[in-house]
Amino acid sequence: MEQKLHFETDYMAGCHPLVLEALVKTNMAETVGYGDDHYTAGARQIILDVCGLTAEEAEVQFFVGGTQTNATLIDGLLGNCEGVIAADSAHINVHESGAIELSGHKVLSLPQKAGKIQAKDLEEYLTHFYADDTWPHMVIPGMVYITHPTEYGGLYSVDELKAIRDICQRYGIPLYLDGARLGYALGASTTAPTLKDIAALCDVFYIGGTKCGAMFGEAAVVRRGLIRHLFSLMKQHGAVLAKGRLLGLQFRTLFTDNLYERICGQAVALAQELRRIMVDAGFPAVIDSPTNQQFFEMPNEAIDALAQHVGFEYWGPRGATHSTVRFVTSWATPPQSITQLANIISTPS
Amino acid sequence: MEQKLHFETDYMAGCHPLVLEALVKTNMAETVGYGDDHYTAGARQIILDVCGLTAEEAEVQFFVGGTQTNATLIDGLLGNCEGVIAADSAHINVHESGAIELSGHKVLSLPQKAGKIQAKDLEEYLTHFYADDTWPHMVIPGMVYITHPTEYGGLYSVDELKAIRDICQRYGIPLYLDGARLGYALGASTTAPTLKDIAALCDVFYIGGTKCGAMFGEAAVVRRGLIRHLFSLMKQHGAVLAKGRLLGLQFRTLFTDNLYERICGQAVALAQELRRIMVDAGFPAVIDSPTNQQFFEMPNEAIDALAQHVGFEYWGPRGATHSTVRFVTSWATPPQSITQLANIISTPS
Amino acid sequence: MEQKLHFETDYMAGCHPLVLEALVKTNMAETVGYGDDHYTAGARQIILDVCGLTAEEAEVQFFVGGTQTNATLIDGLLGNCEGVIAADSAHINVHESGAIELSGHKVLSLPQKAGKIQAKDLEEYLTHFYADDTWPHMVIPGMVYITHPTEYGGLYSVDELKAIRDICQRYGIPLYLDGARLGYALGASTTAPTLKDIAALCDVFYIGGTKCGAMFGEAAVVRRGLIRHLFSLMKQHGAVLAKGRLLGLQFRTLFTDNLYERICGQAVALAQELRRIMVDAGFPAVIDSPTNQQFFEMPNEAIDALAQHVGFEYWGPRGATHSTVRFVTSWATPPQSITQLANIISTPS
Amino acid sequence: MEQKLHFETDYMAGCHPLVLEALVKTNMAETVGYGDDHYTAGARQIILDVCGLTAEEAEVQFFVGGTQTNATLIDGLLGNCEGVIAADSAHINVHESGAIELSGHKVLSLPQKAGKIQAKDLEEYLTHFYADDTWPHMVIPGMVYITHPTEYGGLYSVDELKAIRDICQRYGIPLYLDGARLGYALGASTTAPTLKDIAALCDVFYIGGTKCGAMFGEAAVVRRGLIRHLFSLMKQHGAVLAKGRLLGLQFRTLFTDNLYERICGQAVALAQELRRIMVDAGFPAVIDSPTNQQFFEMPNEAIDALAQHVGFEYWGPRGATHSTVRFVTSWATPPQSITQLANIISTPS
Repeated sequence: MEQKLHFETDYMAGCHPLVLEALVKTNMAETVGYGDDHYTAGARQIILDVCGLTAEEAEVQFFVGGTQTNATLIDGLLGNCEGVIAADSAHINVHESGAIELSGHKVLSLPQKAGKIQAKDLEEYLTHFYADDTWPHMVIPGMVYITHPTEYGGLYSVDELKAIRDICQRYGIPLYLDGARLGYALGASTTAPTLKDIAALCDVFYIGGTKCGAMFGEAAVVRRGLIRHLFSLMKQHGAVLAKGRLLGLQFRTLFTDNLYERICGQAVALAQELRRIMVDAGFPAVIDSPTNQQFFEMPNEAIDALAQHVGFEYWGPRGATHSTVRFVTSWATPPQSITQLANIISTPS
Repeated sequence: MEQKLHFETDYMAGCHPLVLEALVKTNMAETVGYGDDHYTAGARQIILDVCGLTAEEAEVQFFVGGTQTNATLIDGLLGNCEGVIAADSAHINVHESGAIELSGHKVLSLPQKAGKIQAKDLEEYLTHFYADDTWPHMVIPGMVYITHPTEYGGLYSVDELKAIRDICQRYGIPLYLDGARLGYALGASTTAPTLKDIAALCDVFYIGGTKCGAMFGEAAVVRRGLIRHLFSLMKQHGAVLAKGRLLGLQFRTLFTDNLYERICGQAVALAQELRRIMVDAGFPAVIDSPTNQQFFEMPNEAIDALAQHVGFEYWGPRGATHSTVRFVTSWATPPQSITQLANIISTPS
Repeated sequence: MEQKLHFETDYMAGCHPLVLEALVKTNMAETVGYGDDHYTAGARQIILDVCGLTAEEAEVQFFVGGTQTNATLIDGLLGNCEGVIAADSAHINVHESGAIELSGHKVLSLPQKAGKIQAKDLEEYLTHFYADDTWPHMVIPGMVYITHPTEYGGLYSVDELKAIRDICQRYGIPLYLDGARLGYALGASTTAPTLKDIAALCDVFYIGGTKCGAMFGEAAVVRRGLIRHLFSLMKQHGAVLAKGRLLGLQFRTLFTDNLYERICGQAVALAQELRRIMVDAGFPAVIDSPTNQQFFEMPNEAIDALAQHVGFEYWGPRGATHSTVRFVTSWATPPQSITQLANIISTPS
Repeated sequence: MEQKLHFETDYMAGCHPLVLEALVKTNMAETVGYGDDHYTAGARQIILDVCGLTAEEAEVQFFVGGTQTNATLIDGLLGNCEGVIAADSAHINVHESGAIELSGHKVLSLPQKAGKIQAKDLEEYLTHFYADDTWPHMVIPGMVYITHPTEYGGLYSVDELKAIRDICQRYGIPLYLDGARLGYALGASTTAPTLKDIAALCDVFYIGGTKCGAMFGEAAVVRRGLIRHLFSLMKQHGAVLAKGRLLGLQFRTLFTDNLYERICGQAVALAQELRRIMVDAGFPAVIDSPTNQQFFEMPNEAIDALAQHVGFEYWGPRGATHSTVRFVTSWATPPQSITQLANIISTPS
C-alpha cells in the first residue's frame, strides 16, 4: 500500500538515530536530577563553545518545549508594567494561548514582513512611545522578541539583526531570539547569521531541539545577570525536567560533529528542491523562504487532489478558488519523498 | 489677573455642590463599612430603578476609579485562556498600564471608527477565529468591551448596540460597556441609548462618577450570576472602599432629580457651542463628536497663541505644521468660559 | 432617643472637620490630575520633612486604601519567585482576599505575638531556608512585612524594629511597614518609634489616613531605587486616583500643626480609659495593647446585654460561655462616649 | 571498582526497558502532534478502562512533569479569589517555587501526619471559615489537594479518602489527588485504594510516570465539566508536548499487562526489606511508610560512614548528633543492591 508523504510539519517523527542511541545507551545510568548531572554539564560547555561564549558571560538552561521556554524567559526578562515587542505574527502573540499574558505582560505588536520586524518600525514605535506624555499610563516596552527563522520561514540578515540590536541597546532593553527552528536557519544556503553572530547580538536566545533532531528540548542561552533566580523561575513555570540529563544528552549529541546543522541543512536543501517542483508545476511561492518551510498558492482542486497522497497544511482559511498551503521538510524527511512528490504532481490525477 | 480657561479634561474640579453638601452633612455619622450602610443601599436601589432592573436581575457595586473597575470586572468575567475584544484605541488597551494583562488576560483588538468597534468587524473576527483549526492554541474571545462615549467622544446608536449584542449572544459571551463618561452620552442631544437601553443590552456596565459630577466613584451594574465572589474579587483587586458610604452618598445625590444627566447635558451643550466657535474660526473638527470631547486640527502657531490663555491637550504628537488638539467641557465648566474662549480666538494676538 | 455608642472600628465616620474644610474650600479649583498638582506637591514635601527625608532619598505616593497600597508596593518590591515574610495574623495573609497571590507572590508566614513577628523567628526562618539544599525549589524570601500598630494593637519598640532591620540588611531584603493605623502608634503614650525612626529603619512604609482622620487615603514613603516604574505600577493596579489632589489636600491638612498625631493621640487616651473601665468591670484585657484597639474576654451574657447599647465586634468565633471582643476608638470618638459606656456597664441591666 | 548504591530518589534512571523499546520501535513513525495521534488515543482508553471510567465521565490528558501538572490543573479548578487546601508539607506548598501563587492562588495549609491531612482538620477549617463573618475578605477554599503516597511515604486508606471526599462534596469543592508516586501506592502490600477507588473518590488525579517507570510524563484524569478549555489551559501553561505521542506511547506500555503496578510493587518490596535491615541495624524508622520512601534516624557518624558507599539524602537539616535521612527505592533498583546495603551496614567501617 502506498504510504502518504508527510510535509505537515517538522515535529512528526521521534528523534535523530544518534540522539536515540545516546538515550538508549545511558538509559539505566543513575544520575542526580534537575540538570546537575555530568551529561548536562558537558552539553552546556559544548553549546557555550559553539556560541563563542564563556560560562562567565552566559548560562545555558534546557527546557522541554518552546512555549514553556518563551513564557519563562520573557517573564524573567520583563519588569513590572513592561511588555514585549514582537511581530503581530509572532508565535507568542498568536499561538501560545496567552502564555505571556498569564505571567502579567502584554505583547506589543509591530507589523511584519515574512514574519520579521523592521528596525525602522521598531525605532518609530519607541520614539513615539516616549514622545507621548501619557506613556507612564501605558505598557512600557521592556524587550524585543524575534523569531529566526520566522513563522513564515524568513531569516534576518546579520545587518538586520545589528540594526535591531542597536536600537535595543539605545533604549536599554534586551533582544530575545526564539530559535525554535534555528537549525533550519543555520543550515540554510544563504549568508544567514552563525550561532556566534547570534550569541554576539542577542541577549537571550534558544536553540530549538524539538523540531531539529531532538526527541524534545530547547537549549536557552542567557546572558549572565539578566534574569534573577533563573532556576527557581523555571521551576515555578513547571519547566524543570526531573531527569534533566535527557536534555543534556540530546544536545550533547546534536552539537557533536556538527550534527545539528548538517541534518537541518539537508532538510533545507530538500525544501528548496520541493519549491522548484511546486513553482515549476505552476504553484507560485507566496513568500521567499530560504528555510524548511515553503508556502504556495494553489487552486483548491489541485489542493484536494494532492491531499489524497501528500500531507501538508492550509495557511490561513481556505479561499474561494485558491488557498495558501504550507509544506515543511525536516531532518526526518527522506530525500526520495521529494522525487515522489514530483511524480505525484506530474501525474494527471 | 486673568484666569486661564480650562478645557484639558473633565476631572479637574472637585464635585458638584450638591454632592459636596451630601458629604458634608453626613460627615460625622457613623456607619458600618464596605458598603453595607443604608446610604449605599439607597443608591443601589435608585440606580436599579433608573436602569429598569430588579435586585434579582442585577447587582450594583461601587468602585473608586475606572481602571480599577475595568480590571476587576473583566477579570471576573473572563475564564482561563480567554481575552477581551476591544477597539485598538480602547482605554484598557492603551492607557491602563496593562491592568488587564496583570490579571492574566489578553486584549484582542479590533479597528475603530470614532473609537467604536463595528458589528461586522466583530462578527468577522469571531467567524475567522473558530474557522481556524488552531484556535485552541490561541487566546479565546471571552467577552466584548466597548466605551460609550468612546475615547474620541463617539456614541453607539441603539441599533449599533443591538447588533453587537446579538453577536455576543450568538457566541455566548458577555457585553461590557465602560461608561466612564456615560453622563455625557445620556446628556447628549442625539438619540443616544438611554440607561434603560444600556441596561437591557449590556451584561455589565458602569456609570462613571469621577468625570460626571462625583468627587470620585463609578457605579457598576452587573447581571446576576455572571461574576462569582464579586465582593471578594473587588477586595482582592484593592477595589473596596472602607468607607463605602462615600460612594453611595454621591451616587444617591447624582441620581436624585436627574442631576447626573442634567449637569452633563449642560456640559455637552457647551461643548457643541465651543465646537461651532472653533470651526467658525477655521479649525476643523476631526471627529464628529456629539459629546463633551471635541477634537480639532489647528496650525501650530494658533495652538501656541491660544495656549497662553486656554488649557487644552494635544491629541497625539505635535505635527510639523498642524496638530490635533482636544477640548473637553465638564459639569464644572462655567458657561461664560465659552464666551471668553470666543473672545480670545477672535482677538488678534 | 438613646443613640448607640460606636466602638466597632475606626473607619465609621467621615473625616476630621479640618480635612473636610480643606476639601470644601478647594472644591471648584481646577487642577491637573494624577497627583501632579501643587497641593499634592506640598503634601509630599511636608511628609518628607516630618520623616527627616529628602526627595532624593525617598518618594511619597498617595493611595486610596490599604489593601491597594500593600498589593501594589509589595508587587513592586518582590522579584520573580520571591515571597513576603509576614506574621500569620498579618492583614495581607488573612484579610485581603489573596491580593498578594493575585500578583503572583506567596506570603511566608511566621508565628506572632500581639501581631508582631520576633527577630529570632525571622532569623531562624532565613537561616533554615538557605541551609536547605532544595531552596531553589522553594519560594525565596524577598522582603519582610510588618504592621504597626498590629492587628492586635501591638507596637514594635525601636529596638525590635532595629533587630528586624538588621536581619533584613544582612539578607539584602527590604523591610516594609504597614501603618494603616500609624497615627494610633505615634499618638500612643509609650515610647513608640517616631516617624523619623520608622523612616530611618524601614525601606517602605505607609502612613494610614483612612482610619486616622482622612476621608480616605494612605501616604506611602518609598526609598528611591527600590521600585521601578512606580507610577505605572500604581496605574496598573488601579491605584491612581484621577483627582489626585484630594489625597494631597487631606495629608497636607493632617500634617499641618501636628493634627495627625494629636487627634489619634486623643483616641488612644480614650481607649486606655475604656480599658480601665472594662477591666474594673471584671472583663480582663486579653492583649496588652497600648493603642486604640482593645480586646477583652467577656461572658456571653454580658456581651449580649452590652450589645443592646454599644457597638463592638467579636474577635474570633463566639465561645461556649465566654468570647473575645474588640473595642476600637478613633479620632471621631466623642470623649463623653467613654463616660456613657462606664454608666451603661455599671447599670444593672 | 566498587559502584555506589543509589537510594537518593526515584528518578535517577531513564525508563523501564519496555517503555524504551516502545519509543525505539516507533521512533521514525510520523504522526500529528499535540496528542491527537492514535498511540495517545489508545493510552487514553486503557487508562479510562483501568480506572473504570468512560470517556463521557472523564478525560485523560498527558503532561511532562508533576509541577506543571499541578500548576495547570489547579489553576483550572480554582475560580477567582479561591485557594487550594493542602497539607503544610504538600509539594505545592513547599517545593514548586510558588507555581500555584504564580497563577494567582493561595495555598491554604493544614497540619499533616505522615504527609496526610485529617478529615477532622479539614472539616474544622471549613466550618470555622464560614463561621467568620469576614470570610468574604479572605481567600475562599476552592478545592482540596492531597498527595498519595505523601511526601513522607504515607498512604490514605479508602475510608480516609471517603471521609475527605464527603466533606468536599458537602462544600461543593473538588478533590484532587497528586499521584506523582502513585505506582508505589498501588504496588504497596497494604490494603491501599485501587485506581478504581481513586477514580471513584477523586474529581481530578494524576498517575505519575516520571518516578514510576516512564522516561517522563504524568497522566491526568479529569472529570468532565470541571475545567473549561483544558487543552488551551495546558498550552498556556507551556504544558503541551509537541510530540504528544511520546507520552501516549509510554503510558500505553506502562498500562499493558499491569506493568506499572508490578514494577512499582517490586520497588516497595525492596523498600520494606531495606527498612528491616536498617531497623535491625539500630536505625529506627521515623515514619511508618508502607511505600518506597523510608526515613530513619541515624547517628551522624554512621551517616558519614555509610555515605561513602551509598547514596541517600538528609531529610531536613543535619542535627547536632543525629539526623533524619531518606532512602528511596524505585522500579530501577536492582534487588542485589539491598543485599549489598546489608553487607555494607554489617561491615565495621
